[in-house]
Amino acid sequence: MTRRDGRKNNMMREVLIQPNFVKFPHGSVLISYGDTKVICTVMIEEKIPPFLLEKNPAQGWMTAEYSILPGAGHVRNPRPGYGNNQLKGRVHEVQRMIGRALRAAVDLKKIGPRTLMIDCDVLQADGGTRTAAITGTMVAVELAIQKMLKDGKIAENPIKTNVAAVSVGILSNEIILDLDYLEDSSAETDTNIVMTREGGLIEVQGTAEHGAFSKSQLDQMLEIGQDAIRNLFALQDRALGKNR
Amino acid sequence: MTRRDGRKNNMMREVLIQPNFVKFPHGSVLISYGDTKVICTVMIEEKIPPFLLEKNPAQGWMTAEYSILPGAGHVRNPRPGYGNNQLKGRVHEVQRMIGRALRAAVDLKKIGPRTLMIDCDVLQADGGTRTAAITGTMVAVELAIQKMLKDGKIAENPIKTNVAAVSVGILSNEIILDLDYLEDSSAETDTNIVMTREGGLIEVQGTAEHGAFSKSQLDQMLEIGQDAIRNLFALQDRALGKNR
Amino acid sequence: MTRRDGRKNNMMREVLIQPNFVKFPHGSVLISYGDTKVICTVMIEEKIPPFLLEKNPAQGWMTAEYSILPGAGHVRNPRPGYGNNQLKGRVHEVQRMIGRALRAAVDLKKIGPRTLMIDCDVLQADGGTRTAAITGTMVAVELAIQKMLKDGKIAENPIKTNVAAVSVGILSNEIILDLDYLEDSSAETDTNIVMTREGGLIEVQGTAEHGAFSKSQLDQMLEIGQDAIRNLFALQDRALGKNR
Amino acid sequence: MTRRDGRKNNMMREVLIQPNFVKFPHGSVLISYGDTKVICTVMIEEKIPPFLLEKNPAQGWMTAEYSILPGAGHVRNPRPGYGNNQLKGRVHEVQRMIGRALRAAVDLKKIGPRTLMIDCDVLQADGGTRTAAITGTMVAVELAIQKMLKDGKIAENPIKTNVAAVSVGILSNEIILDLDYLEDSSAETDTNIVMTREGGLIEVQGTAEHGAFSKSQLDQMLEIGQDAIRNLFALQDRALGKNR
Amino acid sequence: MTRRDGRKNNMMREVLIQPNFVKFPHGSVLISYGDTKVICTVMIEEKIPPFLLEKNPAQGWMTAEYSILPGAGHVRNPRPGYGNNQLKGRVHEVQRMIGRALRAAVDLKKIGPRTLMIDCDVLQADGGTRTAAITGTMVAVELAIQKMLKDGKIAENPIKTNVAAVSVGILSNEIILDLDYLEDSSAETDTNIVMTREGGLIEVQGTAEHGAFSKSQLDQMLEIGQDAIRNLFALQDRALGKNR
Amino acid sequence: MTRRDGRKNNMMREVLIQPNFVKFPHGSVLISYGDTKVICTVMIEEKIPPFLLEKNPAQGWMTAEYSILPGAGHVRNPRPGYGNNQLKGRVHEVQRMIGRALRAAVDLKKIGPRTLMIDCDVLQADGGTRTAAITGTMVAVELAIQKMLKDGKIAENPIKTNVAAVSVGILSNEIILDLDYLEDSSAETDTNIVMTREGGLIEVQGTAEHGAFSKSQLDQMLEIGQDAIRNLFALQDRALGKNR
Repeated sequence: MTRRDGRKNNMMREVLIQPNFVKFPHGSVLISYGDTKVICTVMIEEKIPPFLLEKNPAQGWMTAEYSILPGAGHVRNPRPGYGNNQLKGRVHEVQRMIGRALRAAVDLKKIGPRTLMIDCDVLQADGGTRTAAITGTMVAVELAIQKMLKDGKIAENPIKTNVAAVSVGILSNEIILDLDYLEDSSAETDTNIVMTREGGLIEVQGTAEHGAFSKSQLDQMLEIGQDAIRNLFALQDRALGKNR
Repeated sequence: MTRRDGRKNNMMREVLIQPNFVKFPHGSVLISYGDTKVICTVMIEEKIPPFLLEKNPAQGWMTAEYSILPGAGHVRNPRPGYGNNQLKGRVHEVQRMIGRALRAAVDLKKIGPRTLMIDCDVLQADGGTRTAAITGTMVAVELAIQKMLKDGKIAENPIKTNVAAVSVGILSNEIILDLDYLEDSSAETDTNIVMTREGGLIEVQGTAEHGAFSKSQLDQMLEIGQDAIRNLFALQDRALGKNR
Repeated sequence: MTRRDGRKNNMMREVLIQPNFVKFPHGSVLISYGDTKVICTVMIEEKIPPFLLEKNPAQGWMTAEYSILPGAGHVRNPRPGYGNNQLKGRVHEVQRMIGRALRAAVDLKKIGPRTLMIDCDVLQADGGTRTAAITGTMVAVELAIQKMLKDGKIAENPIKTNVAAVSVGILSNEIILDLDYLEDSSAETDTNIVMTREGGLIEVQGTAEHGAFSKSQLDQMLEIGQDAIRNLFALQDRALGKNR
Repeated sequence: MTRRDGRKNNMMREVLIQPNFVKFPHGSVLISYGDTKVICTVMIEEKIPPFLLEKNPAQGWMTAEYSILPGAGHVRNPRPGYGNNQLKGRVHEVQRMIGRALRAAVDLKKIGPRTLMIDCDVLQADGGTRTAAITGTMVAVELAIQKMLKDGKIAENPIKTNVAAVSVGILSNEIILDLDYLEDSSAETDTNIVMTREGGLIEVQGTAEHGAFSKSQLDQMLEIGQDAIRNLFALQDRALGKNR
Repeated sequence: MTRRDGRKNNMMREVLIQPNFVKFPHGSVLISYGDTKVICTVMIEEKIPPFLLEKNPAQGWMTAEYSILPGAGHVRNPRPGYGNNQLKGRVHEVQRMIGRALRAAVDLKKIGPRTLMIDCDVLQADGGTRTAAITGTMVAVELAIQKMLKDGKIAENPIKTNVAAVSVGILSNEIILDLDYLEDSSAETDTNIVMTREGGLIEVQGTAEHGAFSKSQLDQMLEIGQDAIRNLFALQDRALGKNR
Repeated sequence: MTRRDGRKNNMMREVLIQPNFVKFPHGSVLISYGDTKVICTVMIEEKIPPFLLEKNPAQGWMTAEYSILPGAGHVRNPRPGYGNNQLKGRVHEVQRMIGRALRAAVDLKKIGPRTLMIDCDVLQADGGTRTAAITGTMVAVELAIQKMLKDGKIAENPIKTNVAAVSVGILSNEIILDLDYLEDSSAETDTNIVMTREGGLIEVQGTAEHGAFSKSQLDQMLEIGQDAIRNLFALQDRALGKNR
């Protein structure tokens, strides 16, 4: 199979991470996986949600909201909360995944009774928005943490590890990396993988859309995905000006 | 580690499937995984959703809604739509998973322009509600299909395969099957697996709650899960009076 | 007139009360009036609503929510809070009636600053759901109160009396007891009666659906209803293991 | 017992009916029961609700909405739909009662596939708003029907009878008619009665608020209520310029 | 051009202000601009909104809600919060304008930590409802303030000035004052003007509906509007029994 | 007075218009007025709203939605439709103004039964977002129209004129152009002006925040605003590659 854009099966689209894309939040990034572009911002709120206040009032929290701008795709995407439009199930699913992924990277006990509010807004949607959002938000969170350290809000760096994410799918029975929208629409299986810098798995979500997939295919998807994620850590470092 | 209820790590709780638990729907089941009890009903509606009407008006649809009764657990679970209570993100996530799983089992082209409306209502919640819901709904769908065949609504059986589901997790670094609520609350990783009778994977959702998990742990979880699911197919058959 | 199911005009359907049907709430019951089946649960919440907090902070509260499961009838009943579905006016009417009825049975001053949260979920709907809910909830409340006494949460039994309820209607100009769904749909008048064990009236709601009803018909409906309710008290006692 | 405003127990407050209070609707009335003042309007919409369209497309419909203006009482009453304010259960209960009452007075088969939309807006709330609303709306409906006849929209008068309503209650163990807000707040029992000109009962809603009430008290409440309603029919006639 | 109702271009419709139209609020008025009739009520709430509590807890607040009764016009106006009806954008726009206008007249620092809740309910809608609402509410606010002074709630009169409002428009290229509904529907431009007794401008909202308007037309509209508003102050004074 | 950023009173911030900022919509622009940045997209939908379908089914429609990204300012701006967050009144006000302004520029009779859906999403909010949105959207609409002409969807250019907008305010009694967020927060008066290329006024919204403003101040604000808008037309032309 030849991919529409000429990529080899195990090639990602070009990944760009532009730090500080938005001026006022504590951390922000514009990340693109090819034509998929996501703004990730992190704002610190000096409060924690009620459930935590009861259970663990000294600890912090981090949670994410995700949205696709109405003009992000070929067909207009209605805004939740305008008219009677409601938040779609898919949006809930995605933003919960982003929040879980990032909470795996940060020791919330070390940020004090604050909430890091993550917002991922998709400017252009061409497949892989949730994985781009996770990879980009990791950088925005680091920027926000650096600012907290610099401002003396916290004394110790709470970041335990980096996380990054890609999707791998099966299309015409071949394993392909980082599906764009058209590939995603006709893929037999789509798997989203979130991994730590140390190679630990944080999330593996494999879903058959047509037919089923085998354990051996899952193994191959994981292998290709893990290779790709390793490169993403390097790009995150570069965006942050680190030479690890 | 000894489990609270004395089970071995790779043992399921007792699974009971009571067909026709509710009288009026086309198919219904009460399924229990230990103290987790879910009512699964299937009703046929002679219409299809707008998106399908545009794209494929001759085909049918199947979708699921999932809810936990207020008195299902130890703490009351507020009803969506009462007062300003909203549907929680978790509910969206679960009902989308149930719908996807069942659509993998039925050839929707063969049911005509109808919707099979699945409703999963959790009577008692003690962990594993979504996997019990999938396993039970499969039986309710078969009952509804049998009725459609008998009533002459459809000529050909649209069921392509059976699906069933279990959760497997990691607790104190050991792999355990079919977590109850307390185990689930402190597990490091929770993986939900949906499989077909033929052994194909439909859904693998592994999520680290604390730390990360390794590829080798994922492999073990899948192996234990697959063994358990094979037994569930036998229980589904028995509930339907089949001797496969 | 012969009734569809052969009952005499002043006969109830079979009434079954299964205590402790759900495991985790403080009190629970499955009650059936024929094919009508309602789960009644009672949970204690250690808080009271704002209006009471202002007016009478030492007193308790008891309120009810009522819902019909989507698969309870022949036609699917949409869930409030899913999509843009809203709570129907009828549901408000019914749950307010259940709450009022039960508050007549319990001295809320004696339960402390707590709320007894009543939930009535209709598993099968075949007419008379609100009256079955009231009769069943009375038992669930007693179970919850017994638990509170046993746990030492309260020292004195706050139950002042028992309440139970039936519907009586006029169909083809005849007075009939405990209407099922089909009877209810074509009845000229429908009257719901809630009574205490001592014979006091708590609620009388007579509504003409076609034509009007006379004072003498109301008198007859009340007489038949009162006889039936007396039997319900005996069934409540039996379910609670009392020999009054 | 002497009533606060000096009325005898079986006396109503002054009732005034001002027809055509609002200019643009097909029928309108301002009715007062003492300090309770309700605007009742009736507008004709050339459509019927979906449920009727399916079942009986040639027939008409009539339904009511009820609301209390924010400044109607001593404490501001929040508007539904502003902020997150929701329609209260009590409002649902009242507007369903108004609709049922008026549908008993009009033969909907004779009004064609139209909806008579009733709106009852309480300007001042001092008890008895739902009964005033019913009595006043009857006049507004007659005005709207007269206009429909005059405009040639319908050929035959669809009004079958008149309806009117009062509340009767028990306070300090005495039966009193037409309770004002303060009386209603401390009454032991409150009964709303809707009757036809011919003396048929359309709705009897007796509710114990403290203690219970006896059959003999119900009888007395009905007797006093029926006498009062007969006078209301005369006032309706006078407002319409009839000398029946 | 001759206006439908014979008015000269710079003539207002008859303006009537009836103080104390509703009995229970702290201040109330029924104002009419011709067939446009608006009930304005002011109620004192002993609390202030959260944003002010944070910023300035000793100061008071004043805000407005605006609504059109369903039967106010020729076509029924659906109620927000009933069914899935939402508050329309126009309503937000109008009520924000009313609130801003009145806040220009009252020194909120002098009313203590209270909220003056303004409610403007349109009984009849025939154009100019927002300007009538502002002019009428000014009187209702004064009545409420007089009551607060009399009750000793406040020691010093917080009213800084009076405000009143009219609309001026361009129709068939002529400048006309106080447009009724039909004029408003076909006007090329509509300008709402709010002014203080001293002649200061509080709000000028000129909007072209068809074509554009020139600076010189704006000047003329302002001149005509200012003259009309001067007369409104005299009517406000008379309604309050002042001889200024 | 010296302005914080050194601008003279009648100077605008730097204005940048980047066409085709988002790839998939029919027209798109990123516009900045200094640190205020707004994405404007225009998408064509092959349908028109119900009210127009009834009144004028051959004509097109254009309407706008406006939103501020959560991370656009210093404090997080909650998303409508997430949790119980509702659309704020201010958002309604702004998006209605944008829609009106653009409808003044396009002859909707010439675009056929389609809707041009405008979306203005504020990336960074530093004052003047609504005026930037109008100026930017004009360019995005032109891009969308060019595409429609090129694709043969329409034969004739429906653009009647250009519109652009600025704010002018009074701060410390001086007239200043294009207020940033801090200036806007303490301004005595804020006036938004929308004008056509020919110098016609489309919208003038002057609002006193503290005190009142005089006719002569309004005249000065309009003069300064009109000069500034003339420059904006040149920038719109340049962004579109025109040399007018």
